[in-house]
Amino acid sequence: MPRYALKVEYDGGPFSGWQRQVDLPTVQGAIEAALARLEPRDHTIAAAGRTDAGVHAFGQVAHADMEKDWDPFRLSEALNFHLKPAPVAIIACAKVADDWHARFTAIERRYLFRLVARRAPLTFEKGQVWQVGHPLDLAAMREGAAHLVGRHDFTTFRSSICQADSPVKTLDRFEIEEITRPDGFPEYRFRLRARSFLHNQVRSFVGTLERVGAGAWAPDRVAEALAAKDRAACGPVCPPHGLYLAGVTYPHDPFGQ
Amino acid sequence: MPRYALKVEYDGGPFSGWQRQVDLPTVQGAIEAALARLEPRDHTIAAAGRTDAGVHAFGQVAHADMEKDWDPFRLSEALNFHLKPAPVAIIACAKVADDWHARFTAIERRYLFRLVARRAPLTFEKGQVWQVGHPLDLAAMREGAAHLVGRHDFTTFRSSICQADSPVKTLDRFEIEEITRPDGFPEYRFRLRARSFLHNQVRSFVGTLERVGAGAWAPDRVAEALAAKDRAACGPVCPPHGLYLAGVTYPHDPFGQ
Repeated sequence: MPRYALKVEYDGGPFSGWQRQVDLPTVQGAIEAALARLEPRDHTIAAAGRTDAGVHAFGQVAHADMEKDWDPFRLSEALNFHLKPAPVAIIACAKVADDWHARFTAIERRYLFRLVARRAPLTFEKGQVWQVGHPLDLAAMREGAAHLVGRHDFTTFRSSICQADSPVKTLDRFEIEEITRPDGFPEYRFRLRARSFLHNQVRSFVGTLERVGAGAWAPDRVAEALAAKDRAACGPVCPPHGLYLAGVTYPHDPFGQ
Repeated sequence: MPRYALKVEYDGGPFSGWQRQVDLPTVQGAIEAALARLEPRDHTIAAAGRTDAGVHAFGQVAHADMEKDWDPFRLSEALNFHLKPAPVAIIACAKVADDWHARFTAIERRYLFRLVARRAPLTFEKGQVWQVGHPLDLAAMREGAAHLVGRHDFTTFRSSICQADSPVKTLDRFEIEEITRPDGFPEYRFRLRARSFLHNQVRSFVGTLERVGAGAWAPDRVAEALAAKDRAACGPVCPPHGLYLAGVTYPHDPFGQ
């Protein structure tokens, strides 16, 4: 059975997360249903990151095994046809080796979190960024974020239901960029890279750093929270709808980009 | 009666344009209804640009006359409260002189048109950009656009129902920028500036230049179309949902920005 890597974009808003669940709309379920329109049988796809309810992606990667030898472009076109009107799109498709695995072959995940500081309600990108009504201090947030880069025990920043074997992970990069939106208000883009992430790790980071940016936390308190290795030391976990799985790195890019 | 300038952002999708119409949802109607919640009576506001159905704005400017002496920030907060859940927001508010007029005091309008070239259906910003499925040639579009800058008779590029006294206008700037979207696909941002625009002028320009970008028109054909002063020489008028009223310039910025 030929195997295909799929680069997947989705608006997480209407979905109960990536992972298939009985009687709940999920991204995995939507794609598997579209695959069943092409080859009628049960399909099970695997993904690099099982995003939570409300989390978006423009660089999720999954793989699917097909019976027929599909031309990758035609497969993506057929899937997009059957995915409509769900806000899920296959934006790249490539044939991969039988032992290539979207999750286990991946060597890096990249996340983006978008935070907008503006008082007036959003009319565009509602549900696609996290909005706060007060100004944020970029330098302070960067200072706080710097404490998190590197290999650490991230017990403070993982949810109590996290199933990872170990809370020790290496955060390779954590950059925060400020851009001016067309409306003139600032948006903060948090970009994170690691081999893998713990459950709720990004949302725990950003929720905590927002407190730093608002002036409620000194930047050094992030280091203290990390050192505490105690979930109770974490700042508030921020909402999912500013979070995007931005990309997945493999030893060789299956999409040749 | 104190007069207030309002900077207005809206998603034009659900509206039949800016201008109030009986029994149809319009942006003007939504704001006037919100004003009536604050000061119960008929309100009539004036705007710098009467955008068409489906056209968006993040820099529309209107003015409203109030009986009460409102603090501008409180007025914007109260309006935003009553505008909910309509996708309209007052993003700045300032007190202006009694003879200041959102439309007649304006000396420049700025428009943005967003065009995305990507085959897969959009999951984000659907209805907020115009999408085409084929690649576009930026250099060719820029070459075509250059023919349109300056003072010209724009008969070719205005709708047959345009009510302007004269088809002669001066287009001060027409820039086209290509950006790479987070999904890796290109987006073309057309930015135009003029004292005023004719009806459907931007959509006539962009629809024509898309044909140039796609290779169906040589860039010089834009100059020929302009010289023809004939509506029939125009390329296809593109859809409204990629168009934004980006800003309005006044001799003195009422919002102090």
